[in-house]
Amino acid sequence: MSDLTIWTYDWVPEGPRGFVRDLRLRWACEEAGLGYLVRTVPFDGRETNHLSHQPFGQVPFLSDGDLEIFESGAGLLHLARKSEKLMPRDPVGEAQTVQWTIAALNSIEMVSVPWWFLKVSGAKGNGLAGWMGHRLDQLEKVLNEREWLAADRFTVADLLMADVLRVPDVRSYGDRPATESYVTRATDRPSFKKARADQLAHFAAADQSRSAAGQTSNRR
Amino acid sequence: MSDLTIWTYDWVPEGPRGFVRDLRLRWACEEAGLGYLVRTVPFDGRETNHLSHQPFGQVPFLSDGDLEIFESGAGLLHLARKSEKLMPRDPVGEAQTVQWTIAALNSIEMVSVPWWFLKVSGAKGNGLAGWMGHRLDQLEKVLNEREWLAADRFTVADLLMADVLRVPDVRSYGDRPATESYVTRATDRPSFKKARADQLAHFAAADQSRSAAGQTSNRR
Repeated sequence: MSDLTIWTYDWVPEGPRGFVRDLRLRWACEEAGLGYLVRTVPFDGRETNHLSHQPFGQVPFLSDGDLEIFESGAGLLHLARKSEKLMPRDPVGEAQTVQWTIAALNSIEMVSVPWWFLKVSGAKGNGLAGWMGHRLDQLEKVLNEREWLAADRFTVADLLMADVLRVPDVRSYGDRPATESYVTRATDRPSFKKARADQLAHFAAADQSRSAAGQTSNRR
Repeated sequence: MSDLTIWTYDWVPEGPRGFVRDLRLRWACEEAGLGYLVRTVPFDGRETNHLSHQPFGQVPFLSDGDLEIFESGAGLLHLARKSEKLMPRDPVGEAQTVQWTIAALNSIEMVSVPWWFLKVSGAKGNGLAGWMGHRLDQLEKVLNEREWLAADRFTVADLLMADVLRVPDVRSYGDRPATESYVTRATDRPSFKKARADQLAHFAAADQSRSAAGQTSNRR
């Protein structure tokens, strides 16, 4: 039995289902064939209820024996060190994989998440729209020339970049065929499909427990 | 002689001097006692002139023998693997260091850089102000309880987090004494002071070369 445990919320509303970031860690474990458990912290009171594990009150975090790691990007790099299926072991392949993993977090998601945040807050105009389009255009040029970002093979960098790009508002922002093919290619992998289905089932089951526990009573 | 080379621009305007991200890699090399060269790519035409090295047209990038790595975060993790002075070698210390390095990039800088971008674009209001304050408050709580982020010692995670937080607009945004002490503690290190002075000298020397080459002629 594995000591690897992915921690996520016990329940979330419909909106984020299929996009909660525990999916990144599930996907990586599935891709690598690593066994894992999924355990939960309460969604209600999340701002304060697990600050000892995650100082920003978010999920996921990962535990592995006596290690505990928050930040999905850090969890992915940890899993990548456990399995060559996620990251090659030669120095050049490893450096490229880490580089593109960080690029997904700090060159793309650093723009796409705040852009999305402004979009859904309904602010008039979006001061990040130009930057967002420019970064996606730059990435499109890269993806026009290669199937995967690093080391001529699927790595944890693609898993993360595809997860950043598949957010519907991001995916539909402009017409970038190479990026669209890339996201399709990544999310067609059985490991992604299983991770996503498992997350959806996890939260659907939580609906039933909440209902059984009478937590719907406040709907009166 | 070291094969380690930090690539930066040949010149930048006054504004960003002291904050160009090659400083992160200089600081890490100084902290670790690693020898390095600094080489340059042209600032003029940066959008297209080094895309083969950095697809987003930015600096820095790092070369180390036959490795070439862009993204300052990835460069820092590479240097951290070369020197225990930047990252402990025990699994818990290493995991904490990587986790806080990613937190600097994806939980703090993912908010602070777009917030700053909106601020300097002079947009009315700033749709990221609430999120920015909240994240800095969460970090303040952590820094109130410890001197350094990971493993009870200075690591590359502190180097990066302090570099994210020392940006003047970020540093002066609200009153957070633990964060302010932390930034002061980190930037009081001789390795930071040398890295910053070297960057300032590098760009000041470039002013003189540009002037000598007659590149000021367009000031007429």
